[in-house]
Amino acid sequence: MAVLCKPAIAVPEHVITNEETLEIARRLHHDHPQLELALRLIKNTGVRERHLIQPIEKVLEHPGLDTRSTLFEAESKARVPEVVLRALEQAQVEPLQIDLIVYVSCTGFMMPSLTAWLINTLGFRPETRQLPIAQLGCAAGGAAVNRAHDFCSAYPDANVLIVACEFCSLCYQPVDLGVGSLLSNGLFGDGIAAAVVRGEGGTGIRLERNGSYLIPNTENWISYAVRSTGFHFQLDKRVPGTMEPLSPALRAVAEQHNWNVGKLDFYIVHAGGPRILDDLSRFLEVPPEAFRFSRATLTQYGNIASAVVLDALARMFDENSALDGHHGLLAGFGPGITAEMSLGTWASPDS
Amino acid sequence: MAVLCKPAIAVPEHVITNEETLEIARRLHHDHPQLELALRLIKNTGVRERHLIQPIEKVLEHPGLDTRSTLFEAESKARVPEVVLRALEQAQVEPLQIDLIVYVSCTGFMMPSLTAWLINTLGFRPETRQLPIAQLGCAAGGAAVNRAHDFCSAYPDANVLIVACEFCSLCYQPVDLGVGSLLSNGLFGDGIAAAVVRGEGGTGIRLERNGSYLIPNTENWISYAVRSTGFHFQLDKRVPGTMEPLSPALRAVAEQHNWNVGKLDFYIVHAGGPRILDDLSRFLEVPPEAFRFSRATLTQYGNIASAVVLDALARMFDENSALDGHHGLLAGFGPGITAEMSLGTWASPDS
Repeated sequence: MAVLCKPAIAVPEHVITNEETLEIARRLHHDHPQLELALRLIKNTGVRERHLIQPIEKVLEHPGLDTRSTLFEAESKARVPEVVLRALEQAQVEPLQIDLIVYVSCTGFMMPSLTAWLINTLGFRPETRQLPIAQLGCAAGGAAVNRAHDFCSAYPDANVLIVACEFCSLCYQPVDLGVGSLLSNGLFGDGIAAAVVRGEGGTGIRLERNGSYLIPNTENWISYAVRSTGFHFQLDKRVPGTMEPLSPALRAVAEQHNWNVGKLDFYIVHAGGPRILDDLSRFLEVPPEAFRFSRATLTQYGNIASAVVLDALARMFDENSALDGHHGLLAGFGPGITAEMSLGTWASPDS
Repeated sequence: MAVLCKPAIAVPEHVITNEETLEIARRLHHDHPQLELALRLIKNTGVRERHLIQPIEKVLEHPGLDTRSTLFEAESKARVPEVVLRALEQAQVEPLQIDLIVYVSCTGFMMPSLTAWLINTLGFRPETRQLPIAQLGCAAGGAAVNRAHDFCSAYPDANVLIVACEFCSLCYQPVDLGVGSLLSNGLFGDGIAAAVVRGEGGTGIRLERNGSYLIPNTENWISYAVRSTGFHFQLDKRVPGTMEPLSPALRAVAEQHNWNVGKLDFYIVHAGGPRILDDLSRFLEVPPEAFRFSRATLTQYGNIASAVVLDALARMFDENSALDGHHGLLAGFGPGITAEMSLGTWASPDS
């Protein structure tokens, strides 16, 4: 059975607080007709601080896509290996024992993806399968877990390395002045996560069932415009309300597994914003406290895209509260609008 | 057992012959110090004609990345559905029976990928899993088959739709004047392919084993520079020689399956260029005729990236020569340098 082991996380050293974000918004957009609305939305994110790969003054300069692409590659190579090695160590798996690397990253583009370089640099076997995913956005953390689960179902003794590398600050676009863009500028942060799914052994979530759900006719609600200045994130104002149509899908997956989605022992979900957590609590009839791991990620790091679910999961490991046999849900949400959902049971080698 | 059914193929209506390509190269690059070498390389590709989504005069104008991205999306939406529906019909599978869509395309970028729009437009279930892959280049055709195979191993009654959509002409970069770029300008074509992998039933290749191999320390040999003008394809002159280091990997996968890679009944490989086919013939000790399907794709369509292997496979179906129990190899080659390899046996429902 596939077990999702403890994720390793890293956030960069440059910190910006919510107060600093608000100050910058006031300074840059003092004549914006909807400034007050934008400031209120940023305040309400609940984000206390975010971590960035560069000082904020550098982030605010757009040096052009050529430079940003070079930076994306250099920063990925500088920051990802340590996180990967820590995830392997936490799972007690050697690079030579990894059969598949699922690499998710939607905030920059490389071909080949970093998988080839990682294999060459960190001692993975040349036979390691590579699965780079760039187009599932914030849902990709959940998708990575689910495809790793599927791979271990196909090859029961396989081990899969998942890596999520998101430098959202490299998608800052100074020309985008809609309220959704101003909000996003105050919401997203940078972060890296990695975790191993072990086919045999390991302590963590034993993955038992996964599913996907696309809310019909919402493919334009979260999207990129791909322009000469890079990826322009386009956020529809209906997105914060998507937990209402997604909750029945979460409920349905749980029911297929004979579980009640409102009565699980743990919940690890993508914290896209505060309303997502509030609404999930309401529609799944689950106490807000159940989403404390995701809320802590949002508060301390902001929305770090596909890395959120892995960071929230790492916090649950740190709390050390899960007991053998506890049932839980892990879910990523992102463009499509897509939910990537997973059900599992806490397990340790003795269980 | 997963069966890869007959692919559906479409190439666009604008045709350019090798003679016309040479004429254009002479006109545009008359003062290029290595023009003669470039012309010789283009002649030697063996490409007779290529099909493009726009007239060549339009291709040669670079209208900027914003326009190209818009065009990529519009042309994908205009051209992909018919191919998908034909692939489904050929496999006798309804949209509602598809559990996963693997969408591979490296010549433009969309988020969400076309999977969301396809699900909304063609009647797939909202629960359909989406696996978009943009970063495996020409190897992605093989990777798509392999991930579909793995998915059917995990869920034995599942059906997977594979789509490869490649508009290489949208990556033409007039400022790139290296010999590798001039050669690429005369080598790549546009094309779309789709195929269904059925978990149960179906006529085609019963997928039995797959594997991946990365030639160590070659991640810079095929790559994109991601710039304000879009993807710039960078081709190292050592790439045509990569079949020598890849042949042992092909041999090894066959040996794991107790097959002799030189004695198979059919070979469906990525025709990146003519030397790849010649070298494979030499290093695998297989008659050149064995690669007739791939060679026909190269001759008639050029290198259509991830769609090559599916087009070559469709030609084998059309030849109607495979018999139940015939053993064969399917392999994509691309950036990394990565080979995505698959072994299978021809099967029909009666076999």
